Amino acid sequence: MDKRPLITITTDFGIADGYVGTMKGVILDIVPQAQLVDISHHISPQDVRQAAYVLYTMYPFFPPRTVHLVVVDPGVGSARRPIALRTPAGAFVAPDNGVLSYIMARERVEAVVELADPRFQLPQVSHTFHGRDIFAPGAAHLAAGVAWDAFGPAVADPMTFPTPQLEGTPGRIRGEVLHADHFGNVITSIGVLVWEGETLRLAPAFPQGGLPRDLSFSAAAATVEVKGQRIAPVHPTYAAVERDAVLALIGSEGHLEIAVREGNAARRLDLAPGDPVTLTWD
Amino acid sequence: MDKRPLITITTDFGIADGYVGTMKGVILDIVPQAQLVDISHHISPQDVRQAAYVLYTMYPFFPPRTVHLVVVDPGVGSARRPIALRTPAGAFVAPDNGVLSYIMARERVEAVVELADPRFQLPQVSHTFHGRDIFAPGAAHLAAGVAWDAFGPAVADPMTFPTPQLEGTPGRIRGEVLHADHFGNVITSIGVLVWEGETLRLAPAFPQGGLPRDLSFSAAAATVEVKGQRIAPVHPTYAAVERDAVLALIGSEGHLEIAVREGNAARRLDLAPGDPVTLTWD
Amino acid sequence: MDKRPLITITTDFGIADGYVGTMKGVILDIVPQAQLVDISHHISPQDVRQAAYVLYTMYPFFPPRTVHLVVVDPGVGSARRPIALRTPAGAFVAPDNGVLSYIMARERVEAVVELADPRFQLPQVSHTFHGRDIFAPGAAHLAAGVAWDAFGPAVADPMTFPTPQLEGTPGRIRGEVLHADHFGNVITSIGVLVWEGETLRLAPAFPQGGLPRDLSFSAAAATVEVKGQRIAPVHPTYAAVERDAVLALIGSEGHLEIAVREGNAARRLDLAPGDPVTLTWD
Repeated sequence: MDKRPLITITTDFGIADGYVGTMKGVILDIVPQAQLVDISHHISPQDVRQAAYVLYTMYPFFPPRTVHLVVVDPGVGSARRPIALRTPAGAFVAPDNGVLSYIMARERVEAVVELADPRFQLPQVSHTFHGRDIFAPGAAHLAAGVAWDAFGPAVADPMTFPTPQLEGTPGRIRGEVLHADHFGNVITSIGVLVWEGETLRLAPAFPQGGLPRDLSFSAAAATVEVKGQRIAPVHPTYAAVERDAVLALIGSEGHLEIAVREGNAARRLDLAPGDPVTLTWD
Repeated sequence: MDKRPLITITTDFGIADGYVGTMKGVILDIVPQAQLVDISHHISPQDVRQAAYVLYTMYPFFPPRTVHLVVVDPGVGSARRPIALRTPAGAFVAPDNGVLSYIMARERVEAVVELADPRFQLPQVSHTFHGRDIFAPGAAHLAAGVAWDAFGPAVADPMTFPTPQLEGTPGRIRGEVLHADHFGNVITSIGVLVWEGETLRLAPAFPQGGLPRDLSFSAAAATVEVKGQRIAPVHPTYAAVERDAVLALIGSEGHLEIAVREGNAARRLDLAPGDPVTLTWD
Repeated sequence: MDKRPLITITTDFGIADGYVGTMKGVILDIVPQAQLVDISHHISPQDVRQAAYVLYTMYPFFPPRTVHLVVVDPGVGSARRPIALRTPAGAFVAPDNGVLSYIMARERVEAVVELADPRFQLPQVSHTFHGRDIFAPGAAHLAAGVAWDAFGPAVADPMTFPTPQLEGTPGRIRGEVLHADHFGNVITSIGVLVWEGETLRLAPAFPQGGLPRDLSFSAAAATVEVKGQRIAPVHPTYAAVERDAVLALIGSEGHLEIAVREGNAARRLDLAPGDPVTLTWD
């Protein structure tokens, strides 16, 4: 079975202007047999944290040979470095602005290099579109098998931002809203919660500070509080409630989620990233 | 000429969140040489009928070896079955919620099976994202050539909803609005209408009850009535009228369509799916 | 290294209806090994000039073997011809409505043929969807290697519209707004401007009438005027100003651009295509 080089693309470029198409032209000129997969081009403009979240949800489902190209780059044209990160779960090409923070917190970092060598950039590098001129050719050459140390010096201090921290005591976990998706489902930082029969066990997605080990509780005895609303209990699925009812459940990434069945919870409850969320149980 | 496995994808997931990209990762991990084609990810959330309509317009233009993956799934997590349908015109993977009704009404049903065998699902199946955990791997394994009867038991009673029914007498056909497209063109259930010179002949897209056979009429003598407006005659093409004029014509799937040349008929005439439409002639 | 036939697609069809997917089905039925790249399907409905602009920005980054398929076609069903254009920089398939004007002004025209032969169209050609019935199969057969003269007669007089003309004297260039992109960055017709150290030199993107040769000036001494606002100087990059500040810079295609750092200049300054822009310097 032939395995073509596989490159995913995540940007805040939108899809109306041809910017993404242009990047694909650059890639396919270098590595014609590549398979390209769009992840999202609707990251909110310059929202590095949202891009980091979307990356976190999808990379585990791609083969480890995948190169994930991420261009959400408010610092284009400044001194921020273009970098490539190698982990056992995949390679990542991005600006050094923290967008890979969640990956670095979860995966073993095998290498971080600066994409410095002009041989692996377009002949003319603009000040305003490094996605086309540096990142796309970098990802293409990586996918084509160029050696990691050919691109440039190792980066010892890649920029990262703190991963979501949970505060917890037995009976209570405090987190925040991470993301509201296309359906208006509201994903929180409280996760990963694993079903064990009727019980939920917290196995944090990211390294945590002072959280007790072994936080387990009965889903039926749990209550979510957000913006003065109390939602109980935690259900396994949307279908557990009537159409149009608010519910708490465990979403597809294993995080506590607030939803409205066949409706929009973000709008109904006026929730946005950063809003505090508390989960309590008896 | 190599023919790679061909899979189309139709969802209501939008394209901002990475859900579709995640499904593609799952597919390409199973069948790396697959060719993936997005049909639409902007089906209105949970609108099974709209998805059924979009499927109906596009599948005849794909090779019969294509696997069409459809995930519009308001019942995710409930007892609704995940199914695969084989016809001479292509294979279809979808929730058993009626989204394949138009296909089953038009094509010979060769097999319907439940995607029950966990060997062809992800190791962990969430309660909320069967697109990723069941449907994507199902479509991938089908495209990779796994035998149909390996997936699970035959389904004798797949769910279907009634296909659009026309009421007609010589001189009059009554139908309804099916869909308003991106341009605001309004497609009705009155079709397929085939041009024979200046004459239009009705050859219904779906099996019909008490409709007379051989409904033919002169396009020049036909009038469309919708929401109290009369539009006449039926034209062959947008270019038959001035810019900004309302017209009736036969659209690209052979259905009676109401349009505004270089404008938006759905908005201008305030038309929506379900609105009754009458076509009369002398 | 295998090079699969490469086809880009640019339309005003949106991505909700399945029209683009249908075209891809037609293409892959003819040339199963094709690599398809979406450029944009969000050209404003029937906006031939916007499509021409998007084409202009992206085609140079694709290999010359690429077939660029463009369907923005207000005249569908009228007498306008479907054509294919061959240049050393790529092939183009489009309606003969001026959408290839910028390409013809910049590249050597090697051949223009009418897509007239029904062997290279679908068996049934509708009056309303030539993208599916004529243009997609035309592009597919071209990409598959069908000889150019097999498609139909040479076209001696393809339709073109004038490319953007600049008025200039030493010390002053007058142009107009060409495009506002997804970020709200406003691209003007004043270009290509090439950095030579701190100096900018005008090397017009399109043939020009009475413009003096050798227009060079110091970026630091330049001022942009648009809608009564004065913006100075011309910067190399967004990062040269504070967040939320208005600036002038040279965009990724080498055109004078007006932007707001991490903001939306089109909205802030109320700019739209056609608005006059003046660049002056000491």
